[in-house]
Amino acid sequence: MGDADFIVIGAGVVGLAAARALAGEGARALVVERRGPGAEASSAAAGILAAQAEAAPPLLKLGLLAREHHRRLASLLEAETGIALDYAPRGLLELAFDDDGERRLLERAEWQRGQGLAVDVLGADEVREAEPNVSRAVRRALFFRDDHSVDNVRLTKALAASAVSRGAALLSGRPVTSLVVEKGRVAGVRAGNEVYRAPVVINAMGAWAGLLGGDPVPPPVEPVRGQMIAFDLSPPLVRHVVYWGHGYLVPRADGRVLAGSTTEQAGFDKSVTAAGLRAILDIALQIAPILADVRVVDVWAGLRPGTPDGLPVLGPGTLPGLYQAGGLYRNGILLGPLVGELVADLARGRPLPLDLGPFTPARFGLGQASASRPTS
Amino acid sequence: MGDADFIVIGAGVVGLAAARALAGEGARALVVERRGPGAEASSAAAGILAAQAEAAPPLLKLGLLAREHHRRLASLLEAETGIALDYAPRGLLELAFDDDGERRLLERAEWQRGQGLAVDVLGADEVREAEPNVSRAVRRALFFRDDHSVDNVRLTKALAASAVSRGAALLSGRPVTSLVVEKGRVAGVRAGNEVYRAPVVINAMGAWAGLLGGDPVPPPVEPVRGQMIAFDLSPPLVRHVVYWGHGYLVPRADGRVLAGSTTEQAGFDKSVTAAGLRAILDIALQIAPILADVRVVDVWAGLRPGTPDGLPVLGPGTLPGLYQAGGLYRNGILLGPLVGELVADLARGRPLPLDLGPFTPARFGLGQASASRPTS
Repeated sequence: MGDADFIVIGAGVVGLAAARALAGEGARALVVERRGPGAEASSAAAGILAAQAEAAPPLLKLGLLAREHHRRLASLLEAETGIALDYAPRGLLELAFDDDGERRLLERAEWQRGQGLAVDVLGADEVREAEPNVSRAVRRALFFRDDHSVDNVRLTKALAASAVSRGAALLSGRPVTSLVVEKGRVAGVRAGNEVYRAPVVINAMGAWAGLLGGDPVPPPVEPVRGQMIAFDLSPPLVRHVVYWGHGYLVPRADGRVLAGSTTEQAGFDKSVTAAGLRAILDIALQIAPILADVRVVDVWAGLRPGTPDGLPVLGPGTLPGLYQAGGLYRNGILLGPLVGELVADLARGRPLPLDLGPFTPARFGLGQASASRPTS
Repeated sequence: MGDADFIVIGAGVVGLAAARALAGEGARALVVERRGPGAEASSAAAGILAAQAEAAPPLLKLGLLAREHHRRLASLLEAETGIALDYAPRGLLELAFDDDGERRLLERAEWQRGQGLAVDVLGADEVREAEPNVSRAVRRALFFRDDHSVDNVRLTKALAASAVSRGAALLSGRPVTSLVVEKGRVAGVRAGNEVYRAPVVINAMGAWAGLLGGDPVPPPVEPVRGQMIAFDLSPPLVRHVVYWGHGYLVPRADGRVLAGSTTEQAGFDKSVTAAGLRAILDIALQIAPILADVRVVDVWAGLRPGTPDGLPVLGPGTLPGLYQAGGLYRNGILLGPLVGELVADLARGRPLPLDLGPFTPARFGLGQASASRPTS
């Protein structure tokens, strides 16, 4: 029988969503987690659901489905767990401060409209009316009214609470070192001296996904560090998610504003550095100079799971019974809950609502691409 | 009899040094402290003993005496308490990166030499030989070989340990709200519901010195915020105290490097802010670009006791039995131990080694200037 029907490695947003989906239909789901739920990128993120602002063609459909999924999930999880997710349907502003920036925004607006997506182009006065503390130097902005945000720390807690209340088992402080492989297929995982047995294993290890022993062709996931700053604000000085270049401000319901982020190849080093902080402060003060005198209450860094082509690694792995659910890079919170459910469906042979072909692990030579095709 | 012969308000470097001196000669000294020893600026500082780099004419003699006093004190305190002060006799480099900066340095060197002080003018190659991680953009530097540094956190702990071991009483968590005044002279202090009695009271309250109730003309001391960053370094990347403009790097014996600082009028708000952090990061990375990728391990702010003319407030107060020992602004660690001993001598009617006239509280209209003249 084994210890479970499904073992999920990693209690981030993806793994918890997968376990919740599996347990919700009576399967025995076991989450084996190195530290604790949400200990890594799922809590370090800013919780931006930027299906449009971060849109790239191969990700657009998955991102839009994931965004829609969040809206429903927030109500469901709040009802199930009593945890307020602070889902904030206020939209996202992306700013331009110069000719180049304006040109890029207008091109993006045109492309997005061609895809049938809602996007408003705002002049400087309209931007400052929508967001009075944006710098007077602003020239123009796009407004993505359907790109919302969620408190990812609360989301992760709620997913964990829901998964457990549905019957999933969650073991924290168990660093999985390798798969257990028997007769050419997955039979469980090993964590230290302990072995947990199940016929299906889902790798939801985030930035650590490439380090799973026993996987003959581990996914080429690499950590990409993102540093963050939290400002203490009361009352809130920023209303919307505000993007500029590669940075952003995100208001939180508790009055803080988060500012991010960097994109750094620094291995598994989660240091907050001088150059990182300075880059984020430059972004934050360019967007909203009023932040200059606001108290910095926290700084941290997280590790995004990056892939060579920037796309997720989602589908069957190299061994029968193994599934990959990772590589979500900058969009882990947006995509995570849906990806968790999709991989759960895939592992149970259910039909999927979209083609996961672009995300198949096989594109890196990991095999078995056929099983990632939609079955309906 | 009262509770003590002398009450010292405030357990920072000044107050602890005063209590240590008084107790060392058998007097009953009682330190009444709002929070705990070294809870404020004495621990927030960087520990630079920059008698020359920070020299302004009225402070020069006091600063030089204080610097010499530190050298002896470090050995004494280490022997008395077993606490290593990490007194670092490595000297201070002050950098110039452009014509203006070079001109200012050369003028300062000339003035200092005119005062008979040791100062070396280094070319770019010599600077980089002395301090290999200084930016390649450096043009010139002054080297003050006698401006050293000390770990001010350890210094404060050692002063507290020494004062107590010599018999001083130290009451923490007692915020003094006012003087007790009887028949026109000081008779003690009030802290909440408690009264402590002594015929002499020394105000060593740092940035809070102007808030002492019952002082008819409180000293015009105002808090001046200084923000700080600590970098984790192993092995140390910086050898000397390195100044540039209003900022600096200071290596600590434990491998950290401190970077500072700001000079801000922000009331009693000890927030670390976006603008403050960015200013310090700009300074730190201008001095030593290698710090860009180094981990930032801590940020904090402290409140310097500033005065209208930037000079200490040192001498008899407005009431008989009251003494002021504060307003040390940017030089609290340099001056504090000596100032504490000087005010102790003054309160006991001892001769002083220098004229405290320029620092008399009377210059702000607080009266009794005559008693601050040297008695020998």
